[in-house]
Amino acid sequence: MACSRYEYVKGYEQDDRILPNVWIVIRIDGKKFHKFANTHKFEKPNDENALHVMNVAGIGVMQEFRDIVLGYGQSDEYSFVFRKDTDAFKRRAAKLLTYVTSLFSTSYVMSWPKWMQQPLAYAPCFDGRIILYPSDENLRDYLSWRQADVHVNNLYNTAFWKLVLESGLSNQQAEQRLRGTLSADKNELLYQQFGINYNNMPAMYRKGTILLRKRVLQFGQDEQDKGRQAIVPLHEDLIGAEFWRKHPEILGKYVPGKQQLLDEKSLPKLLEQQLTDHMEEKARIS
Amino acid sequence: MACSRYEYVKGYEQDDRILPNVWIVIRIDGKKFHKFANTHKFEKPNDENALHVMNVAGIGVMQEFRDIVLGYGQSDEYSFVFRKDTDAFKRRAAKLLTYVTSLFSTSYVMSWPKWMQQPLAYAPCFDGRIILYPSDENLRDYLSWRQADVHVNNLYNTAFWKLVLESGLSNQQAEQRLRGTLSADKNELLYQQFGINYNNMPAMYRKGTILLRKRVLQFGQDEQDKGRQAIVPLHEDLIGAEFWRKHPEILGKYVPGKQQLLDEKSLPKLLEQQLTDHMEEKARIS
Amino acid sequence: MACSRYEYVKGYEQDDRILPNVWIVIRIDGKKFHKFANTHKFEKPNDENALHVMNVAGIGVMQEFRDIVLGYGQSDEYSFVFRKDTDAFKRRAAKLLTYVTSLFSTSYVMSWPKWMQQPLAYAPCFDGRIILYPSDENLRDYLSWRQADVHVNNLYNTAFWKLVLESGLSNQQAEQRLRGTLSADKNELLYQQFGINYNNMPAMYRKGTILLRKRVLQFGQDEQDKGRQAIVPLHEDLIGAEFWRKHPEILGKYVPGKQQLLDEKSLPKLLEQQLTDHMEEKARIS
Amino acid sequence: MACSRYEYVKGYEQDDRILPNVWIVIRIDGKKFHKFANTHKFEKPNDENALHVMNVAGIGVMQEFRDIVLGYGQSDEYSFVFRKDTDAFKRRAAKLLTYVTSLFSTSYVMSWPKWMQQPLAYAPCFDGRIILYPSDENLRDYLSWRQADVHVNNLYNTAFWKLVLESGLSNQQAEQRLRGTLSADKNELLYQQFGINYNNMPAMYRKGTILLRKRVLQFGQDEQDKGRQAIVPLHEDLIGAEFWRKHPEILGKYVPGKQQLLDEKSLPKLLEQQLTDHMEEKARIS
Repeated sequence: MACSRYEYVKGYEQDDRILPNVWIVIRIDGKKFHKFANTHKFEKPNDENALHVMNVAGIGVMQEFRDIVLGYGQSDEYSFVFRKDTDAFKRRAAKLLTYVTSLFSTSYVMSWPKWMQQPLAYAPCFDGRIILYPSDENLRDYLSWRQADVHVNNLYNTAFWKLVLESGLSNQQAEQRLRGTLSADKNELLYQQFGINYNNMPAMYRKGTILLRKRVLQFGQDEQDKGRQAIVPLHEDLIGAEFWRKHPEILGKYVPGKQQLLDEKSLPKLLEQQLTDHMEEKARIS
Repeated sequence: MACSRYEYVKGYEQDDRILPNVWIVIRIDGKKFHKFANTHKFEKPNDENALHVMNVAGIGVMQEFRDIVLGYGQSDEYSFVFRKDTDAFKRRAAKLLTYVTSLFSTSYVMSWPKWMQQPLAYAPCFDGRIILYPSDENLRDYLSWRQADVHVNNLYNTAFWKLVLESGLSNQQAEQRLRGTLSADKNELLYQQFGINYNNMPAMYRKGTILLRKRVLQFGQDEQDKGRQAIVPLHEDLIGAEFWRKHPEILGKYVPGKQQLLDEKSLPKLLEQQLTDHMEEKARIS
Repeated sequence: MACSRYEYVKGYEQDDRILPNVWIVIRIDGKKFHKFANTHKFEKPNDENALHVMNVAGIGVMQEFRDIVLGYGQSDEYSFVFRKDTDAFKRRAAKLLTYVTSLFSTSYVMSWPKWMQQPLAYAPCFDGRIILYPSDENLRDYLSWRQADVHVNNLYNTAFWKLVLESGLSNQQAEQRLRGTLSADKNELLYQQFGINYNNMPAMYRKGTILLRKRVLQFGQDEQDKGRQAIVPLHEDLIGAEFWRKHPEILGKYVPGKQQLLDEKSLPKLLEQQLTDHMEEKARIS
Repeated sequence: MACSRYEYVKGYEQDDRILPNVWIVIRIDGKKFHKFANTHKFEKPNDENALHVMNVAGIGVMQEFRDIVLGYGQSDEYSFVFRKDTDAFKRRAAKLLTYVTSLFSTSYVMSWPKWMQQPLAYAPCFDGRIILYPSDENLRDYLSWRQADVHVNNLYNTAFWKLVLESGLSNQQAEQRLRGTLSADKNELLYQQFGINYNNMPAMYRKGTILLRKRVLQFGQDEQDKGRQAIVPLHEDLIGAEFWRKHPEILGKYVPGKQQLLDEKSLPKLLEQQLTDHMEEKARIS
């Protein structure tokens, strides 16, 4: 059939396999989310429910792509770390990049109504990029960079919106007030003027959300049981060494089923939601 | 702040600008859509409404990215052609690829409920790839390849499902019956056994859907008016020369506002829907 | 044997096939040739013999790689154009790039003693790069860019060195004298002050050297004979349309043995040398 | 001037910076060196002088490019290892690749007459490739792979040429005799039939040549002196751990001037030659 006459065009596709033995990070960013947040009236400086939508989308990605060992979300961005020795999709860059971006995007839209009152006014859009890190140190520095970023931005935004929403300053006045201030100054301002101890604010706002694979023991199970695997959201400091000591499976050789055990009682609410959803979905499909 | 200590990791992002002066094709494919179609009980061999969801998603992408001159959809795939001299996103491959893939994905999910009875059982996922074609002939051959593909597949599927659904053959029996047959044989089988003239079947099934930018005259406007721009779905043969004579703006130097005029009376239904939706959406945002 | 344990490292080599159907240009540049020229006391502003060494190296490259349709040399650089549809070395970028760079380099060193009095003081070094041009117009513009470059530089250098060598200006004074002058001014200066009509200077200096594949008729042969193939050096204007009309085989579909016939009487000296060398070399090997 | 009209073509050059923090290996291979060796009547199975030409070319490359920490040569190939954190030529792949390939090529031709009786019959040609290794282990495995390769080949070739040159077998007969034999068999054959203890053959043939940067103490200098830097050829086993313990500077953080001291008395002959050449060359240039 005439197909064959045209099939030579397949030869124009180019191989894009990623170098073996490097950490593959895929970072998703919202396109024009400033406008998107305004259109959908996100709370300032943080909209808890909008962050849940992001986190649920992140969990959806990690449930599908088993070689992602860590997710990290903050604001309108999410990073996913594939283990160094993954051979998922033969390490083809475009496949990995678009699957993750697409599934994050559709999961975002689908989980939106569970958390948000207002319907989506238009289709949101995310870009994705791949960054490769050869060493464990590089990878830790990347994640530290993103978590330092959320700290800087959130401290600023918290002070800014307090000044605007509670002290009645205009945006411009608040900007001027904060220009040139250091972290210590902003902490002091929040404490003196608004009685807020910044370190007591929700960890999700200050630290972002780390997604890890853990085994979760359910009521009645003990350590001998394998538990069930879950994607667990944490809001911890990942810059210091403590985090990496507590979660050695991230950088370690991948051993299926060997992730740390967590007790179901200690689970955060989002995880419970996730478990429930998962069961409902299974029921729906079958 | 400590940010700067980690910022060196930004230097690991690699430049991925696309060679100038080549056609950029982005093709989106559904991930495991065979299973997806079964789960959502798509009609066989073609589910008209499911194809509309694809087309509406394709239209959404072209409304957002103005440098796409043509879209082409069939089955669970969609191709988008950026004009040769586009400088959108500085021709950065990952940006172009992920924006298109993400917006297609979210648009698909958002338009689903307008056309489909059954709710989405789970988040669909698409992959995307970039293919570069240096010459106009290469580009035409690419599109011909995709349209020849839909012809081959659809003729086969039409015969197959007639045998299964109307003649009561098992899948295996139908497969055996069709093994080794030529196009002429399948045409004959459809005509003799089921009284079907294949060429009279809906053009969308036989030819796929071509999306073009056209100006549309509304009631009362004449050729002097600029009309309004719309993304128009067509189901024509694009392999022959006639199509390219009729739509010279695709390969020609891009001249804004110079697309062919269409008369609103000649518009297909999907386009009307698109126009209506667009106005509703505008009303909703403002 | 233990080989196999390590052989996985071969998998780290990455595919670098060049997009089909684009012009492949490889440009070689001398590394620090300013110093190299001084060390070897090149004549200023042009050392005819040093240019011959470059040209002979260029001819050596084209004799070996049959899919190069044109070479263009000026100063310490040489460009080679592979025909659009070459499949040499499966279009692998590194293979093409390094073979051409290496053979140019070794040919340069080997032909040095035939043209230069002074022995090589140290090993010269060249870098190479690949540039892809999708359209014929792009390719012509590339070559025009290089030829316009030689014109600008040579006119400047001719005036500069006249001022230094004949009028006794210091380098700095000559530079100052020429600062801000247009081409017309420099032409005028050469004419008024040194009685030189720039257009009568050797074409090789003003136009660079174009290498083309031609069939050459030898004494006694007529047009019915195939002649023998040779790489012919020309010093013509290639910016205007005339050049491309005269040598249609460059951009045309490649037809082996169909290159233009040249009469041996019209051959430049370098070509004669090339033919003689070639026969001597053949005699030497066999 | 008209230059500017064409200068847009510069924009078609593509960025090719190498990912930071990975080992950059460049391997040079002779093109059709089987034929080249026959034309120049290389001794079988190893031509000591031809290997010296290779080694001197390798030394020339390392003298010029200071960020190469190790060279490894065997047969008609040479590998060069750039330290992980090199920023030479901004890590641009084509620059690194072609400079190394070109300088190796010209050095090869220039040192040829010092070692070989027969003049070069034609210009030799080498290809080069870049391979990236993220971890130290990968790099060691790469070098082990090349050294295991020389062992396998040299043992075979030694046995093969003994059978041909001393036992009077035809090439085909020798091939047949060795088909299916293991290393132990070939060792035994050499010992029984030719009285050769393979392990006593020259280390350069069995292990290839490793080039390292070392400080060399000259007569009368003691450890307090800095000595002079030299590229030292070694013929050691690099597969085992011992080599890496003895030469920690290869994988270690680069500290200029901190390479291991060697005593001039222990220097191999090639190194002496290199030191002498270097001084002659310096004298020639100045």
